Amino acid sequence: MRTALMLGRRGQGRAWPNPAVGCVIVRAGRVVGRGWTAPGGRPHAEARALAQAGTAARGATAYVTLEPCAHHGQTPPCAEALIKAGIARVVAPFDDNDPRVSGRGFSMLRAAGIAVDTGVMADEAGRDLGGFLCRNEQGRPEITLKLATSFDGRIATAGGQSRWITGEAARRAVHGLRARHDAVMVGAGTARADDPSLTVRGMGAAQQPVRVVVSRHLGIPLMSQLARSARETPVWLCHGTDADPALIEAWEGVGARLLPCAVTERQLDIGSVAQALGAAGLTRVFCEGGGALAASLLGAGLVDRLVGFTAGLAIGAEGLPGIGALGVARLDEAPRFALERVAPVGGDAMHVWRRV
Amino acid sequence: MRTALMLGRRGQGRAWPNPAVGCVIVRAGRVVGRGWTAPGGRPHAEARALAQAGTAARGATAYVTLEPCAHHGQTPPCAEALIKAGIARVVAPFDDNDPRVSGRGFSMLRAAGIAVDTGVMADEAGRDLGGFLCRNEQGRPEITLKLATSFDGRIATAGGQSRWITGEAARRAVHGLRARHDAVMVGAGTARADDPSLTVRGMGAAQQPVRVVVSRHLGIPLMSQLARSARETPVWLCHGTDADPALIEAWEGVGARLLPCAVTERQLDIGSVAQALGAAGLTRVFCEGGGALAASLLGAGLVDRLVGFTAGLAIGAEGLPGIGALGVARLDEAPRFALERVAPVGGDAMHVWRRV
Repeated sequence: MRTALMLGRRGQGRAWPNPAVGCVIVRAGRVVGRGWTAPGGRPHAEARALAQAGTAARGATAYVTLEPCAHHGQTPPCAEALIKAGIARVVAPFDDNDPRVSGRGFSMLRAAGIAVDTGVMADEAGRDLGGFLCRNEQGRPEITLKLATSFDGRIATAGGQSRWITGEAARRAVHGLRARHDAVMVGAGTARADDPSLTVRGMGAAQQPVRVVVSRHLGIPLMSQLARSARETPVWLCHGTDADPALIEAWEGVGARLLPCAVTERQLDIGSVAQALGAAGLTRVFCEGGGALAASLLGAGLVDRLVGFTAGLAIGAEGLPGIGALGVARLDEAPRFALERVAPVGGDAMHVWRRV
Repeated sequence: MRTALMLGRRGQGRAWPNPAVGCVIVRAGRVVGRGWTAPGGRPHAEARALAQAGTAARGATAYVTLEPCAHHGQTPPCAEALIKAGIARVVAPFDDNDPRVSGRGFSMLRAAGIAVDTGVMADEAGRDLGGFLCRNEQGRPEITLKLATSFDGRIATAGGQSRWITGEAARRAVHGLRARHDAVMVGAGTARADDPSLTVRGMGAAQQPVRVVVSRHLGIPLMSQLARSARETPVWLCHGTDADPALIEAWEGVGARLLPCAVTERQLDIGSVAQALGAAGLTRVFCEGGGALAASLLGAGLVDRLVGFTAGLAIGAEGLPGIGALGVARLDEAPRFALERVAPVGGDAMHVWRRV
């Protein structure tokens, strides 16, 4: 199952809207087939592993990181394929929570006389497939918030200088994280201040994540790197329903996709943004700031994972805070996260947290 | 040498103004004596290890974490004691930089026909004895700045609530760090806001570190925990030469020690504070904030080590920053530190940095 999970992760950032599943077929202690969800979500992991195993699949055990599908979509159901191939036993972490599958894949297998063991490495699989499960349950992608700060939590000097607080190894790790997400997201302020390209560089990435900018008024220059590269690498703009139609048209003109979102009181409704991204198929979104967007997401309980990079320099209180105003009056109101791991990355400290 | 260093660390926080040295005497592959600087700085590590070894010291090797002293102080010189005991070889990391010793201890040993090897584990010994070496060189103690913050670098809510951001394990680790320092230091704002006792608790500590408060105007309530316990556990106040004489008298009356420091322009001269603490004998000072004191120390280049505890909660931009205004306009002006280690401590991430 550990190998199957490792294979599954190869599809992260490329399988959406499908889950990035891994599958290993073992017969008499020997691996005879390995597969993971192909880019674009098809073929599925099981189909690829079965194809590799061929007739060796007969009587074998299939380790698969999610319940095999049972419905006829654009591919025949994987449960059917496993039965046809003569698989004797299927080991999986848990049921798919997609209502079209949930429990039916396992039932189909059991009805065909296949032994089914579930509950294996469910925590790990839950983490790897969290984005897919979250979208099924809540209609929105799983959101990881990254914060690269000074020792005192600043993301830039008072004047806005932010290049570079963290070192090269940390920045490279960020590119690796981008590559494993369906989309990279920033707020309009960051898009204006940094004019970022938000692409994955130096990783030999075959597919770039979607670049999402959250901007109620579409106040990002049409000469920005994002606008100029929107035809090569997708740019999606989450804007308010009250945005200027001329700007909407202009952005459509440069090749961006526009996602209108609700506006509440004075700002964009961040819940509506998350739902729009889920409806558009995203399962894993990597948010890289800035402070206002980070605060909106945290305030709305939409951050599932935090990734912090802390650098060994002090900028002081005048520096820009990594997270904007949250309106937290008492500590027990503060959003809390549990430490998942901590490690040195080059000269910086990386710490990864999960929503409690 | 590793064992000698470990023994030496037992004296940290208790040997000042003397160095916390460790000594291991080995004869024919067997440890025959172990010693470390006793509380108060005497007897020295070598004397204690020799006493333990007795006649077994003859022909043995002594591993000692600092050059043995050569001058007659309140104890006879250790170099002399090593010679008398018949030690055949002395292994040490480096010369003592105390001008009364520097090189003379080794010369005395060599003149007596003892083999002397230096340069062994000099980096580690330099870290352990940094406070003593720093005081000899610069007249001030080594200063470690601790910052226990939220994920976004805040030490309290806007309303000042700071209990508790980090978890129990991190707070316990802080008590362990206090115990290994000669003094714990805070600014007046923290002393007023938190009314801390700054003692080591739950560690079975036999000796409490000195409690230092930096307060130009002595603006700390005389009913504070610090004032009320000043007779049991030392309280030292670094105040401006312009402080109210009535307050100076009042604090002397409750048993505090007063250290007058220079005032520059609008604030206490932090360099003068550091010199006063060094002159009073401190070698290792653990600063626990607040933001203004941390910023003064960082700004003056007086922070040798940073210890960060990062908790998994977000307080937002209204929260109190851990480090006050530094006047850093460009990133290359920011004080920089190198990562020494990073580890989980309970549910928090600890990261330790050294001045570059």
